[in-house]
Amino acid sequence: MKDVGMKPETLRSATATATFHAPTHCIERIRDRDTEKGDPQATARIAGILAAKRTDELLPLCHPLPIHAAEVHFAFEEQRVVIEAEVHTIGPTGVEMEALTAASMAALTLYDMLKPYAEPAELAIGETRLLDKTGGKSHYKRTLK
Amino acid sequence: MKDVGMKPETLRSATATATFHAPTHCIERIRDRDTEKGDPQATARIAGILAAKRTDELLPLCHPLPIHAAEVHFAFEEQRVVIEAEVHTIGPTGVEMEALTAASMAALTLYDMLKPYAEPAELAIGETRLLDKTGGKSHYKRTLK
Amino acid sequence: MKDVGMKPETLRSATATATFHAPTHCIERIRDRDTEKGDPQATARIAGILAAKRTDELLPLCHPLPIHAAEVHFAFEEQRVVIEAEVHTIGPTGVEMEALTAASMAALTLYDMLKPYAEPAELAIGETRLLDKTGGKSHYKRTLK
Amino acid sequence: MKDVGMKPETLRSATATATFHAPTHCIERIRDRDTEKGDPQATARIAGILAAKRTDELLPLCHPLPIHAAEVHFAFEEQRVVIEAEVHTIGPTGVEMEALTAASMAALTLYDMLKPYAEPAELAIGETRLLDKTGGKSHYKRTLK
Amino acid sequence: MKDVGMKPETLRSATATATFHAPTHCIERIRDRDTEKGDPQATARIAGILAAKRTDELLPLCHPLPIHAAEVHFAFEEQRVVIEAEVHTIGPTGVEMEALTAASMAALTLYDMLKPYAEPAELAIGETRLLDKTGGKSHYKRTLK
Amino acid sequence: MKDVGMKPETLRSATATATFHAPTHCIERIRDRDTEKGDPQATARIAGILAAKRTDELLPLCHPLPIHAAEVHFAFEEQRVVIEAEVHTIGPTGVEMEALTAASMAALTLYDMLKPYAEPAELAIGETRLLDKTGGKSHYKRTLK
Repeated sequence: MKDVGMKPETLRSATATATFHAPTHCIERIRDRDTEKGDPQATARIAGILAAKRTDELLPLCHPLPIHAAEVHFAFEEQRVVIEAEVHTIGPTGVEMEALTAASMAALTLYDMLKPYAEPAELAIGETRLLDKTGGKSHYKRTLK
Repeated sequence: MKDVGMKPETLRSATATATFHAPTHCIERIRDRDTEKGDPQATARIAGILAAKRTDELLPLCHPLPIHAAEVHFAFEEQRVVIEAEVHTIGPTGVEMEALTAASMAALTLYDMLKPYAEPAELAIGETRLLDKTGGKSHYKRTLK
Repeated sequence: MKDVGMKPETLRSATATATFHAPTHCIERIRDRDTEKGDPQATARIAGILAAKRTDELLPLCHPLPIHAAEVHFAFEEQRVVIEAEVHTIGPTGVEMEALTAASMAALTLYDMLKPYAEPAELAIGETRLLDKTGGKSHYKRTLK
Repeated sequence: MKDVGMKPETLRSATATATFHAPTHCIERIRDRDTEKGDPQATARIAGILAAKRTDELLPLCHPLPIHAAEVHFAFEEQRVVIEAEVHTIGPTGVEMEALTAASMAALTLYDMLKPYAEPAELAIGETRLLDKTGGKSHYKRTLK
Repeated sequence: MKDVGMKPETLRSATATATFHAPTHCIERIRDRDTEKGDPQATARIAGILAAKRTDELLPLCHPLPIHAAEVHFAFEEQRVVIEAEVHTIGPTGVEMEALTAASMAALTLYDMLKPYAEPAELAIGETRLLDKTGGKSHYKRTLK
Repeated sequence: MKDVGMKPETLRSATATATFHAPTHCIERIRDRDTEKGDPQATARIAGILAAKRTDELLPLCHPLPIHAAEVHFAFEEQRVVIEAEVHTIGPTGVEMEALTAASMAALTLYDMLKPYAEPAELAIGETRLLDKTGGKSHYKRTLK
């Protein structure tokens, strides 16, 4: 695990997105908060927030960080839900992986809760990526060779 | 959490896939097991296996299951790694979510370890989906209305 | 930790209750699922279900059990919420502690989410107790000396 | 999860109480540290301290905090044990929930260890509430509308 | 993680030992259950039992098993404590690693609690090994090439 | 749990060692990263790093600390592997227990992965001790009475 002890503690934030693809009747159930397992939005939000706080247990080389804020939002399209997870800290390293982990786990929770209503071939988690981050050296363009 | 107590305990397996997209020089580092944080294949494999065993803690409405086997494999293409995770149990409910969680966490671990070598815009986790499952009622086509 | 290996694996269930006491305007917020931290009912339900599955980590001398079902319900009175948690397993020992832990953690989650709206002196978790259990030797009256 | 990043890091403490109700012969066993599962005082103390450190995993919207001290004490009355849990941190938000969680888990541990000696109807966890907190904005009376 | 699904579920037990070496005055404190951090015997016992139940989280390629019994005992010599940990299960694979992990974590807990009373050079955890196991194919001598 | 709130936050590091004893053909398998369960070096390294980050969950009276670096190294001798674990933090208390826990869990992971290739009597974890620590009051010789 890299040594971050010499890096400055700065305010850092990251926003990541993931998408959950499912048939229209499944997306409606998410929007209506109506599945046999309960409210999929509220459950996926909590799963994402809990995962953000445990990222250093899940990704072996991530550092434990004092998570100051974590939130998960959902936007609905006809055959997919766009998940956005935002995480804040004041620490020596960024929270990109925390935001990505929160978005992924929220998407997997939606999958788990909608699974009884669709065939496996109809469900997928689409692209998961970082949307934005601030703080640390991330403001500066890194030159890759 | 749905009651699975009346469901038969049968041998069940599931295979899921996720993809990690990165520039060619990153994919080479994964193939060569060479990053400043260590061997990305070995680390992502362990992260995936550990996540499979903790799926019921991560996805709130999943049941704890006696995981009998969990494995993660990698296939390399020019600008992506295809991850395949396979999980086995003998239990009253299937291991689809365990396989999907293992594939997702392995992909996130690759992301974390290659992050120092690329810009955020160059990295993404692509489609995560179930490839196959056996056991339980999954052999039968379910009719959706 | 007592040896339960010689006990028969039977279908077992337990129901426990806890109460959360708060001013009327707080109870209304719970009923209306409206706090600045999100939906308190959905969040407390998930916290209770997750805690039921982790009881053997939280209570040092409890055995790990394959939780087959866990659910949390809320009933509203003017100045309190009555929480009921029900847990099922097929195992060599009962799930009383799992049900009690689920009810307690659901109550603590309500406390946490309503805390911004009341003074500490106005909030309390009232009686937490077992309502019912079935399975194992629990059908028989034990003679205490 | 609310953003606490803009709140000052101050020395904060909280003390919470819970009670465990049981027949006199059970209270004696706790006082004498004599049950078939081991010393109930030492075990409940450890369960409470461990729970204080994991509060942010158990209560979904609590922040991780650097716990600087956590202790659990017991006072004995004829048919109940009064548990007091005290937690300290230097952080951007208070440790009320950590103290309440520690007191609750200590009470549940006593319940688990005395359960073999009593009928369910004879055992209960009584009122759990905050006794005191210092630090942050807690010194000031908040006006509720 | 190897597939144990085809292995028979049998009653299995394992006993492991570890030793904690410290100056005589430290061994006396353990025997007298008297340190500034509390009772070292009771605390190390609980740490060992909890670790036995979480072995599959700590050792990446261990299988989750239904631990039916776990116990930790201490024997005192002049400058060391001999720890013995015993674990039982009915499962498809043995509990050697669970017993070894319990003994190790109990030893580390003693170290942590006696650390304020000795110099680092005076403290060590001595040999940790398996004493005995039963069940599965362990009764048969395996031929090594 | 002792109160460390009044102790200064300083840069602290600790290095601990453990040894894994096994027949020569097992040591060769570790060096060659070749066992049926995968690469033992990479797996034991990850197990050690993860354990360092969870020390406060495993050792009941340890404080949670922001681990800034954790690394595990292996040196090979004919019939043993010498494991060295190094941990860094900036915190109010030291990371000796984190380094010792990392070394122990790495050793146990090697044991688990080589177990299929040897008899129990041929395997042991040898001396686990602190090699070095810096920061806090550790620079000063403590007088023991």
